[in-house]
Amino acid sequence: MTNKDARTPASAQDEKSTEAGKSIGWHKAYVEGSRPDLRVPVRQVHLTNGQSVTLYDTSGPYTDPHIDTDVRRGLPPLRENWIIARGDTEEYAGRPVRPEDDGIKHTSPRGGLRNLDAVFPGRPRQPRRGRDGQAVTQLAYARRGEITPEMEFVALRENVSPEVVREEIAAGRAVLPANVNHPEIEPMIIGKRFLVKVNANIGNSAVTSSIEEEVEKMTWATRWGADTVMDLSTGRNIHTTREWVLRNSPVPIGTVPLYQALEKVDGKAEELTWEIYKDTVIEQAEQGVDYMTVHAGVRLPYVPLTANRKTGIVSRGGSIMAAWCLAHHKESFLYENFEELCEILAAYDVTYSLGDGLRPGSIADANDEAQFAELRTLGELNRIAKRFNVQTMIEGPGHVPMHKIKENIDLQQEICDEAPFYTLGPLTTDVAPAYDHITSGIGAAMIAWWGTAMLCYVTPKEHLGLPNRDDVKTGVITYKIAAHAADLAKGHPGAQEWDDALSDARFEFRWEDQFNLALDPDTAREFHDETLPAEPAKTAHFCSMCGPKFCSMKISQDIRREHGGSRAEIEEGMARKSQEFAAAGNRVYLPIAD
Amino acid sequence: MTNKDARTPASAQDEKSTEAGKSIGWHKAYVEGSRPDLRVPVRQVHLTNGQSVTLYDTSGPYTDPHIDTDVRRGLPPLRENWIIARGDTEEYAGRPVRPEDDGIKHTSPRGGLRNLDAVFPGRPRQPRRGRDGQAVTQLAYARRGEITPEMEFVALRENVSPEVVREEIAAGRAVLPANVNHPEIEPMIIGKRFLVKVNANIGNSAVTSSIEEEVEKMTWATRWGADTVMDLSTGRNIHTTREWVLRNSPVPIGTVPLYQALEKVDGKAEELTWEIYKDTVIEQAEQGVDYMTVHAGVRLPYVPLTANRKTGIVSRGGSIMAAWCLAHHKESFLYENFEELCEILAAYDVTYSLGDGLRPGSIADANDEAQFAELRTLGELNRIAKRFNVQTMIEGPGHVPMHKIKENIDLQQEICDEAPFYTLGPLTTDVAPAYDHITSGIGAAMIAWWGTAMLCYVTPKEHLGLPNRDDVKTGVITYKIAAHAADLAKGHPGAQEWDDALSDARFEFRWEDQFNLALDPDTAREFHDETLPAEPAKTAHFCSMCGPKFCSMKISQDIRREHGGSRAEIEEGMARKSQEFAAAGNRVYLPIAD
Repeated sequence: MTNKDARTPASAQDEKSTEAGKSIGWHKAYVEGSRPDLRVPVRQVHLTNGQSVTLYDTSGPYTDPHIDTDVRRGLPPLRENWIIARGDTEEYAGRPVRPEDDGIKHTSPRGGLRNLDAVFPGRPRQPRRGRDGQAVTQLAYARRGEITPEMEFVALRENVSPEVVREEIAAGRAVLPANVNHPEIEPMIIGKRFLVKVNANIGNSAVTSSIEEEVEKMTWATRWGADTVMDLSTGRNIHTTREWVLRNSPVPIGTVPLYQALEKVDGKAEELTWEIYKDTVIEQAEQGVDYMTVHAGVRLPYVPLTANRKTGIVSRGGSIMAAWCLAHHKESFLYENFEELCEILAAYDVTYSLGDGLRPGSIADANDEAQFAELRTLGELNRIAKRFNVQTMIEGPGHVPMHKIKENIDLQQEICDEAPFYTLGPLTTDVAPAYDHITSGIGAAMIAWWGTAMLCYVTPKEHLGLPNRDDVKTGVITYKIAAHAADLAKGHPGAQEWDDALSDARFEFRWEDQFNLALDPDTAREFHDETLPAEPAKTAHFCSMCGPKFCSMKISQDIRREHGGSRAEIEEGMARKSQEFAAAGNRVYLPIAD
Repeated sequence: MTNKDARTPASAQDEKSTEAGKSIGWHKAYVEGSRPDLRVPVRQVHLTNGQSVTLYDTSGPYTDPHIDTDVRRGLPPLRENWIIARGDTEEYAGRPVRPEDDGIKHTSPRGGLRNLDAVFPGRPRQPRRGRDGQAVTQLAYARRGEITPEMEFVALRENVSPEVVREEIAAGRAVLPANVNHPEIEPMIIGKRFLVKVNANIGNSAVTSSIEEEVEKMTWATRWGADTVMDLSTGRNIHTTREWVLRNSPVPIGTVPLYQALEKVDGKAEELTWEIYKDTVIEQAEQGVDYMTVHAGVRLPYVPLTANRKTGIVSRGGSIMAAWCLAHHKESFLYENFEELCEILAAYDVTYSLGDGLRPGSIADANDEAQFAELRTLGELNRIAKRFNVQTMIEGPGHVPMHKIKENIDLQQEICDEAPFYTLGPLTTDVAPAYDHITSGIGAAMIAWWGTAMLCYVTPKEHLGLPNRDDVKTGVITYKIAAHAADLAKGHPGAQEWDDALSDARFEFRWEDQFNLALDPDTAREFHDETLPAEPAKTAHFCSMCGPKFCSMKISQDIRREHGGSRAEIEEGMARKSQEFAAAGNRVYLPIAD
């Protein structure tokens, strides 16, 4: 398995075929629900002892050798029939796509060509929206007592009852982001009662990267466990990049519409208008964006609260809205038009991710007046959104030292009626650029333990540059660790089974099982093989870390083997054991060639 | 700066000379104490705004261009005069070094040759010990009210009064590991009132690596911030490797004498005797080992408590002692002879690191009966050690899920009279081999916040193989992050200054300052330059992460510049600002070439 070099995710079967015909490993399997088109993907790991372990799988059809995927065609529209069957949506002509949607100026012939060239070639589709201004959201259904196929899907995925899923959504404690125009997704849920989720950001910038790279980063991120992906593109071809990403994504896609809106006014914040913004939201909703970050909490009176900060406003959206507010000396157009925005989102089932535009960007600024003033406004907006049946989560910081983390989640839960918290990190120190996946992984694990529902990953490139493929993988793996550590600490049912299976494999020197159960089998195997590449080392009762004489697990196993199993047997057998051990040659390790 | 390729740590000046004549950067400086031979090293970072920041420095004379270091000669014996001046120690012939100290069998002519070849060529020295069985420990001095030069040194290093240092040592809440036979060290202190420390493990195994590599790993680890280094060698040339390491180490060196003792009996645990062990301890104490892990808490009755564990006994020392106890069906010879061992350690000022031989090796085994039974015994042994004036710290786990971490430190502090806790991680999940620096960095940061005094690093190779140079660096950096995050959370005086300096540099786009202040300047610079290598990018008000239009800090700065400084000014100026901003061209970013 040489994932580092692969350009597209291979299927499990393909990979294994490169593994010298090994039959062990893992394969993509499905848990079937109440109807044949409701099949929940899982990763089935086959152990050498004949057992198997079932793990949550976010990698989509790409890892199913029976599905022929093609990024030029897009993924099969898994949810299409469910959406149509509800009968509450209609197709319509939709907003015409314009060159400026891709940041192409009318005066640039080169830009126009590039755009046409890249246009997504998959099946033609018309956008869909709720009939007669109806809220076609999972929240509306849940409140009406309906269990949708999407809810049943996530119930199977999380190993809980569909009724628990419905209740959590109805109460606003969980969201199931699923735009009616994104039928390709495998439904997932974000809420503190469920497994902690991880979001990976992708997106080009004005400085670097291409459409292909972004689609590739998306499939790559989900392969390693990203539960959602945010496309934060800010450069050229924003619209087209997003189309490719959406049509090929098995996970919900989030965006920050403000970025594209700003491109449409050529980067001049004060030229932004509610009309341009609204048009952009509709454009993206028609494409199928599942959740949108909206910085409606950055209100005019809060901007001065950031004046004495060490690092001012560090959210892109926050700084844009602050610049707009000051330029016009007017209240934010997002705040002022929030109810109309709710109506739009409800018609597509776009979930709000209420942005924390005033989050702290340094340890010094954590938990300050500006941050918490905005949080209180987010609480207010959350209630408005719920009136319109719009699913809503709340974004959180940022840079926060460990002793100030808990206050963030506690306040958010209180102020926002337990709406899912979706945090970036937090980073627990500022001194380690190039390692901010780790400074933030620490904070992420803690805040998730205390109730955060989804973690936005941070890559090693944070503060320094745009992440590449390796950075995306490192960010996702680090955050899967934080999320799983939190699942364990929360006592999430079934979470520890994975650890137990891996620890059993470790103790029993089933190296292949240990690799296959690892969050990153490739790197685990590679590290082991660096010093002991030969095949016999895969069954050896030691590794190069301690060598054969000092392998505590080996010694520990020998002790146990001498005793039988239970504590009673051991206590009874201890005296006997003493003589036996001596008689057996008194060696705590197997002799190997010196 | 290409540290990745450097074979030995270069001086700061040397490095900068490769940096195209830049005058900014950092240099090694010293803070002088009450006497000319008491000079505390610091890392002085020079910022482009004319300010400078002083950071704790563990790198030793290697980063001082005025000291001519040579690994074949060893470091200058900084503390020699202080030790001699106390007049309570004497030189003596010492124990003759035998081939078997290096694991060389009498029958192996090849082994003998290899040994002679590698012998440390530095100045001849005789070992030193306390006269007439006196305890020549920092604890004994502290209890007598004496402030030693070592205590003054660490007081300057930690920016506290010497009296605080003396008090903490006298109370047993801190240790200052400083064997009288290791005069080369720059004294440091381990205790919860002080900066959280990081230990890096090095050491060859029977399977791989050489003396040169281990010396190199030690200097490399201290260069990146390791406060102590444990030499856990278990293969050939244990004695000689340790001699090279000690003579060249500016930080305290720890060992586990049991490993070498086991080599002397050819790996047959049941052939270990108190005499062989004692002889090994004396051998190592004469060489200058500063602290020793002693697994005296693994008592015969506790072994059966591990019978139902998922991963048995995972401490090397613990499993060896368990095997010995069972083989003889006798109480541990370490436990039985603990008082005599105290007398030996007191004569050299070797600090105890009471090993947690029954620490959990998996999430399933955390905080179990075996672990806490041993901890209670460690509490008992700690009191005995204190009677003999031996400095003592207590080792801790291991694998512990987040919600069970706090119980570990709370119990340890209670049972062991606040003796410094020295923990390995803990790892917060078992599922990520190849990323256990991160699974454990999370737990390390948390337990350090709650009071752990020193963290034993975990490298990415944990559970898989012997760490190489890159792994050592990654492990140290990860743990420096955890330690510093804890210093911040504990409100350690001065800790946040570092974060503030870096965040100021970040906000003001002083990229060079941001790199130089980073925990790892090389990687931060490398990541930035990957996408924007040109020199102008070092002063640009953006990076490739967001590009120029979307740099929130840029926008935030523009806003602030428009307003003057304080909140009052801003509030007063907001209306005015609105017009000015429009008049200035209404751009939130500087135009760049497209």
